[in-house]
Amino acid sequence: MEMKLSKLGEDGLINRIISRHLRKDKKSNSVLIDAGDDAAVINRIAGNIVITTDLLIENVHFKVSWADKLGGLNNLFYNLGYKSAAVNISDLSAMGTVTPLYCIIGLGIPSKYSVSNIDNLYSGLQNAFNRCGIRIIGGDTNSSEKLVISITLLGKCADKYGMIPRSGAKPGNKIYVSGRLGNSAAGLHVLMNNPGIAKLSNVDKKWFINKHFHPPIRLTEAKKIARHSTAMIDCSDGLIKSIRIICEQSHCAAKVYLDKVPVSDKLKKLPGYIRYIVNSGEDYELIFTSSSQKLDKIIPGIKYIGEITTGAKNDIKYYLKDRLYKIPQAGYEHFK
Amino acid sequence: MEMKLSKLGEDGLINRIISRHLRKDKKSNSVLIDAGDDAAVINRIAGNIVITTDLLIENVHFKVSWADKLGGLNNLFYNLGYKSAAVNISDLSAMGTVTPLYCIIGLGIPSKYSVSNIDNLYSGLQNAFNRCGIRIIGGDTNSSEKLVISITLLGKCADKYGMIPRSGAKPGNKIYVSGRLGNSAAGLHVLMNNPGIAKLSNVDKKWFINKHFHPPIRLTEAKKIARHSTAMIDCSDGLIKSIRIICEQSHCAAKVYLDKVPVSDKLKKLPGYIRYIVNSGEDYELIFTSSSQKLDKIIPGIKYIGEITTGAKNDIKYYLKDRLYKIPQAGYEHFK
Repeated sequence: MEMKLSKLGEDGLINRIISRHLRKDKKSNSVLIDAGDDAAVINRIAGNIVITTDLLIENVHFKVSWADKLGGLNNLFYNLGYKSAAVNISDLSAMGTVTPLYCIIGLGIPSKYSVSNIDNLYSGLQNAFNRCGIRIIGGDTNSSEKLVISITLLGKCADKYGMIPRSGAKPGNKIYVSGRLGNSAAGLHVLMNNPGIAKLSNVDKKWFINKHFHPPIRLTEAKKIARHSTAMIDCSDGLIKSIRIICEQSHCAAKVYLDKVPVSDKLKKLPGYIRYIVNSGEDYELIFTSSSQKLDKIIPGIKYIGEITTGAKNDIKYYLKDRLYKIPQAGYEHFK
Repeated sequence: MEMKLSKLGEDGLINRIISRHLRKDKKSNSVLIDAGDDAAVINRIAGNIVITTDLLIENVHFKVSWADKLGGLNNLFYNLGYKSAAVNISDLSAMGTVTPLYCIIGLGIPSKYSVSNIDNLYSGLQNAFNRCGIRIIGGDTNSSEKLVISITLLGKCADKYGMIPRSGAKPGNKIYVSGRLGNSAAGLHVLMNNPGIAKLSNVDKKWFINKHFHPPIRLTEAKKIARHSTAMIDCSDGLIKSIRIICEQSHCAAKVYLDKVPVSDKLKKLPGYIRYIVNSGEDYELIFTSSSQKLDKIIPGIKYIGEITTGAKNDIKYYLKDRLYKIPQAGYEHFK
């Protein structure tokens, strides 16, 4: 349906979102009042409450012109929905053993978009949320000049394993990562028409773009990791920045072996692929430290990439093939 | 301090916000992990959980050019902070007996602004939050082209009096309002240089602008009202839209007596002032229904303005001096 939002109006859009996308599952009795009232009311939560928020803003986190590379606006909206859900779920995973529960959504939407675009946004959101039982319970819907998606997630943790901070790393701890880095950054370079990826086949370009919009959901792994982890972060702004934050907050130094970082065969074929893993972001894999020396033998899929050392917190050394690797910059920084 | 955000950078700004604005009160032991980690973790909440979110978006909810009328950018940012806090608190009040607890903030900030502007934004937020014991526990800070402020509040309610829906009005119920309507709308007209308010004195202009940015905090009144109320809403999009939502969700009709709606003496002096109370918004007073016929004699400050009647849910009649009043439009609608 290509009806424009300007024709449907605010009330029409809100009613449509509530009836089509939020009230499919009426069976839950944990939601006492949901979308359509001033606030949502939910049953008391058995455990401590974990809460996180992330904004996705047009021309900062994505460009609408990318729709061309994704097969149209509806596909872009679907992908933005999936990604904005997944990056918030990633923040919950990075705390350890967390059960995600509820979502509340703030939207700013230019009125030129269609009802079908918004349906696709919610399909993407629900696709990610359905994988882990998250229910959308409310929100705020506005017109705006640029697209803004604000997601807040609530989860619960029953014990200390849902509170793995960034600050608990100790010298002697090993550093591990939950999966491959760099694919999302390569996808971003495809979307941005970076000349470095011009030689890729169309199939590979699509593969990287898909990785960019579909960060992994690591809740199951996080639950296993949490019992062994001293510090954990999700890799949203690149390897360098993630390691730096752990070292700063834990007051220690680190050595990282870049050829131990897992990467895809497709990424390895790109010239200078190391820069996609060190300096770019949005992989949303878990980076964590543990006193267990062989955790990669116990938990499938995680890889050992370095160790926490004594020393000044900014004394972080990167090695590539046994040689010191000079890091280019410090991960993605807003405002710079 | 007039240091630009582009000089301070993302990490510098986040560290400054955390150390200056979020960690003044270290005494609380209900926050287990707060800002600076992937997510915040808070103690289990004794009671049901009330949650709401609201976005304030540049050029939709406010214009940066209004800074001229407020004495500069710092004052604008302070006022935006106060207002974005207060409108979210208003949503909690509209649920009844709610104790507000925590705030999580998403920000999109153009890098041209200064550190001092952001300090003022947080001063405004904290000024409102300190009035009701709300603690900021986390957030997400981004650069963006336009200013975006996304606030999510968590509160608790111990019993059914914290869950007054919009849908519980019954024929025969009286309709009440918690305070004066129209001042905020008049303030908006001053800010927009509407010719209708050109004759106002500068003192009166400032008074209306101040009303626009300082919605009332009605948590105390809401607690008293909740025990007697069948339906409640906060008047964010004007009287007409508020009454319409209650009638739609409660499946009933209404009569409203416009000369019973409380207004300020300053507003009464404006020609055609009725339009500021029926069709404009952002008063954030509580509009509610009750089977108590003389509640205005029991709860100070509330005013009787009409009654719920049997009939079709769109059969809402407005009277002015005993004559039927033809309503102009249906309150503020996004996308139109």
